[in-house]
Amino acid sequence: MSLPAADLVITGCAEVVTAEPGCGEGPLGVIRDGAVAVAGERILWVGKARELRRAVAVEGGTRLLEAHGGTVCPGFVDSHTHLLFAGSREGEFAARSRGVSYPEIAAAGGGIQSTVRATREASPAELFRLAWERLASCLCHGSTTVEVKSGYGLSPESELRCLRVIRRLAEAHPVDVVPTFLGAHALPPEFASRRDAYLDCVLQEMLPAVAAEGLAEFCDVFCEDGYFTPAESERILRAAAHRGMKSKIHADEFAPSGGAEVAAAVGAVSADHLLCVTEGGIGALKAAGVVATLLPGTAAFLGLGRYAPARAMLAAGLTVALATDFNPGSCMTESMPLIIHLACTQMKMHPEEALLAATMGGAAALARTATVGSLRPGKQADLLLLDCPNHLHLAYRFGINPVRTVLTRGRVVVEDWHLAVPRPEGA
Amino acid sequence: MSLPAADLVITGCAEVVTAEPGCGEGPLGVIRDGAVAVAGERILWVGKARELRRAVAVEGGTRLLEAHGGTVCPGFVDSHTHLLFAGSREGEFAARSRGVSYPEIAAAGGGIQSTVRATREASPAELFRLAWERLASCLCHGSTTVEVKSGYGLSPESELRCLRVIRRLAEAHPVDVVPTFLGAHALPPEFASRRDAYLDCVLQEMLPAVAAEGLAEFCDVFCEDGYFTPAESERILRAAAHRGMKSKIHADEFAPSGGAEVAAAVGAVSADHLLCVTEGGIGALKAAGVVATLLPGTAAFLGLGRYAPARAMLAAGLTVALATDFNPGSCMTESMPLIIHLACTQMKMHPEEALLAATMGGAAALARTATVGSLRPGKQADLLLLDCPNHLHLAYRFGINPVRTVLTRGRVVVEDWHLAVPRPEGA
Repeated sequence: MSLPAADLVITGCAEVVTAEPGCGEGPLGVIRDGAVAVAGERILWVGKARELRRAVAVEGGTRLLEAHGGTVCPGFVDSHTHLLFAGSREGEFAARSRGVSYPEIAAAGGGIQSTVRATREASPAELFRLAWERLASCLCHGSTTVEVKSGYGLSPESELRCLRVIRRLAEAHPVDVVPTFLGAHALPPEFASRRDAYLDCVLQEMLPAVAAEGLAEFCDVFCEDGYFTPAESERILRAAAHRGMKSKIHADEFAPSGGAEVAAAVGAVSADHLLCVTEGGIGALKAAGVVATLLPGTAAFLGLGRYAPARAMLAAGLTVALATDFNPGSCMTESMPLIIHLACTQMKMHPEEALLAATMGGAAALARTATVGSLRPGKQADLLLLDCPNHLHLAYRFGINPVRTVLTRGRVVVEDWHLAVPRPEGA
Repeated sequence: MSLPAADLVITGCAEVVTAEPGCGEGPLGVIRDGAVAVAGERILWVGKARELRRAVAVEGGTRLLEAHGGTVCPGFVDSHTHLLFAGSREGEFAARSRGVSYPEIAAAGGGIQSTVRATREASPAELFRLAWERLASCLCHGSTTVEVKSGYGLSPESELRCLRVIRRLAEAHPVDVVPTFLGAHALPPEFASRRDAYLDCVLQEMLPAVAAEGLAEFCDVFCEDGYFTPAESERILRAAAHRGMKSKIHADEFAPSGGAEVAAAVGAVSADHLLCVTEGGIGALKAAGVVATLLPGTAAFLGLGRYAPARAMLAAGLTVALATDFNPGSCMTESMPLIIHLACTQMKMHPEEALLAATMGGAAALARTATVGSLRPGKQADLLLLDCPNHLHLAYRFGINPVRTVLTRGRVVVEDWHLAVPRPEGA
C-alpha cells in the first residue's frame, strides 16, 4: 500500500501544539518530538516524528523544514480588528497619559471622529497600502486569519469603499481576511443630532448595498451607552441576518449595557469585550452558544485597571476567543503573542487556555472551526514555527516576537522573521 | 576654516530625539527634520538636516544612513537586569496563572532557588552563550547599555564565576555591559537556617574577592521582608562602598520595607522597584539625589494590579529611570519599547517622560550621564533608527519592535532588525 505523498514536512519540533484535545497531551493536544506533513494547501498528517516515515511518503521533491528544537502551533486567528484606517492617534494617547478624558478628546475633534475624517479623505489605494502593511505585520506576528471591520467610513459611499478595499485585501494578501460590516460603529458628525436618520441609513441604504455586493460575512454593532442601544443593535443585527450576514457585537465594554443579552437573543457568533458583563449575561451567552471574545490589549492600552472576567466565563463553560482589537484609538497592536501573555498575567487564563483561545477560539468566533484553528489533517496548513522550547514560553516570554516562520495554505509566507511574499502592484 | 569630517551621517529623519532639553523642542529636545553626524566612536554634531553641510564635512568616505522618515533617538540604557542565568521558569509562570502562590512555589523547590541550582550547574561557556544571545536580543530591541547583576550563584565560587562571565561579555559584546554584584539576592539553601553566617560570607568572603578582581562597578541588595533587612542592607552597601563600589538597592517592592531610606542613607546611585515607597521615602530619595528606577514590566508580569507611584515621584522632582528587570522569575522580557509603553499606560507617565527615563534616566541610574543617554556631541554614538514617524509612536504602538537599526560607538551593530556583528568564538 503506498503512503500519501507530502509536499512539505516539519521536523526537529520539541513540541507540536495541535489544538486538538484528542491528539496528544492535555487540553492543547501537545505532541512532544512531533512532526507535521503538508500536502498542497492542507495538513496531511501530525504525529510523533519517529512515526513520520511510516505515515507519509517523503520524496525527493518534499521540502524539509527544520524547527531547530522550536515549537509548532496553528496560525493565530485574530477575530477582532479595525485595521483598515488612515491617520493615527498618538497625540490622543499622549493626552490620555496626561489625564485628559475621552469625552474631552472627542469634544476637541479627536477620538473616533478624527479617524473617520482621515479614512474618508484617504484614497482606496492609500487605504489598501496601509492595511496591506498592517496585515503583513500581523502575519509576521503569527496571525494567519484576521477579521477586518469597516466602521471608519460611516456613510454609504465610504463604508462601501472601505469594504471593497477589504475585499481586494482578501483576494491578494496571504492572510485569510474575514470582512465585517460595522456601519453602526458610531454616529458620524453629520448625523450627530439625527440619530434615527442614521439608523435608517444603516438599515435602508448601507445594509442592502453591502449585501448586494456580498461585501461582508459578518455584521457588527457597537452596543454601549452613547453609541447604539440594545434595541437598536438587535434591530440592525436581525436585519443583517435577514440578508445572510452572521452577527457580532461590541458588548458590555464600559458598562453592563445589555450587549451580551442581545448577542444571545439574535444568536450572534460572538460577543466581544465583555469587561462589564453580568452573571446573567454570561448565562445567556452560554445558553445561546455565543463565543466570548476577549480583548485584553484594549483594557491594558486604556489603562482601565480592569479586565473581562475570563475565569468566570471559562468556569461557565463558554468558548473564549482572544483577539487584538487592533485599532488606532484604543489598542495599537497587531501582536497576538502579547495578547496571549496579557490574558495569562491580567486575566489569569492558563497558558493552555490562552493558546486555545487564540487559535480554535478565534476560529469559533469566525465560524471557521472546520477549516482553521487547529492542526487536524484536512484543515488548511496555516501554522507557525516558534522560537520557543515549549508552548508555555509563548505566554511566558513577552515583548518580543517568537514567530520565526509562517505557513498559510501550505506555503511559507514568513521565513526567519521576514515576509517572504512579494507585494502586489500598488501596495 | 575647514569643517570637522564625519565618518557617518544620518539623514531623512522626521525627528531626532536628543534627550537634551536645551537642544530642540520640549523636554526631550526633539529636532524635526534633523540629522546626526558621527566621527569615530562619538557624536560629532546634531541639528537640522538643512544645516548639516554647513556644520560638518561629508566626504567620499562618509557613510550615509537614510532614516526613511523614521525617528532617531539615543540607545536605551537598561539599568536593571538579571539576565545572567541558566534554566527557565515557565512552569512557575503557568502555576501562578492557576493561583499557586510564590511561597507555595518556593516550598516546592521553585522560585529563585531553582534558578540558583541551574546557574550553579551551568558551565561558564554555557552561561556566556545564554547571556550573549539575550544581550543580542536586548540590542535588537534598542538597548545599547545594559546593567547585568550576579545573584544566582550565592556562593563565593559561583558568584565570582558569574561575574567573570559578565566581564567577558563586557569585553566582547557590542552592548556596553555594566556589572553589579548582588550576592545579597536571597539566602542560598545551604544557609537557610544560618542567616548571620551568610551575611558574614557576603561581607568577608565575596565582597573582598569581587573587589580584588575589580569585577563589579555596583553592589546591590534585595532589601525586603524575607530577604535582607534595612540594617543588613545598609551594612553590605557601606562595606561595598568602602571597597570602591557604587550602591543600588531593591527597595519597597512588596511592602514599605524602608529600602528607600537605606538608599538615601548610604547615598546609593539608585533605588529600584519602589511600588510601596512612602511619601517619606520619596522625600529621602529626593534629598539624597537617588535615582528612582521603575520596573513596570515586573508589576505587569506578576499581575500585581499596582505600579510604582511614578507621578508622585516626578512631582517631587526625582530623576526617574525605566528598566526591564529582565529575569526568569518575575519579568521575562528584554524589550525597553514595551517598558516605555507600560510606563505610559499603567503609571501615566507622559511619553516624553518615559523616553527620557529610558535614556538619560537609565544613564543617571548607572552614573554614566557624561558618556551615554543623550545625543550630545562628544558622547558615545549609541543611537537607534526607529520605524516611527515621531517619538510618540514609540509609546503608542506596542507589542512590536520599532527598532530598525542600532549603532554602538559609531558602529552599525543591528541593521534592518538583524544583528550585524559576528558571534565571538564559543558563543
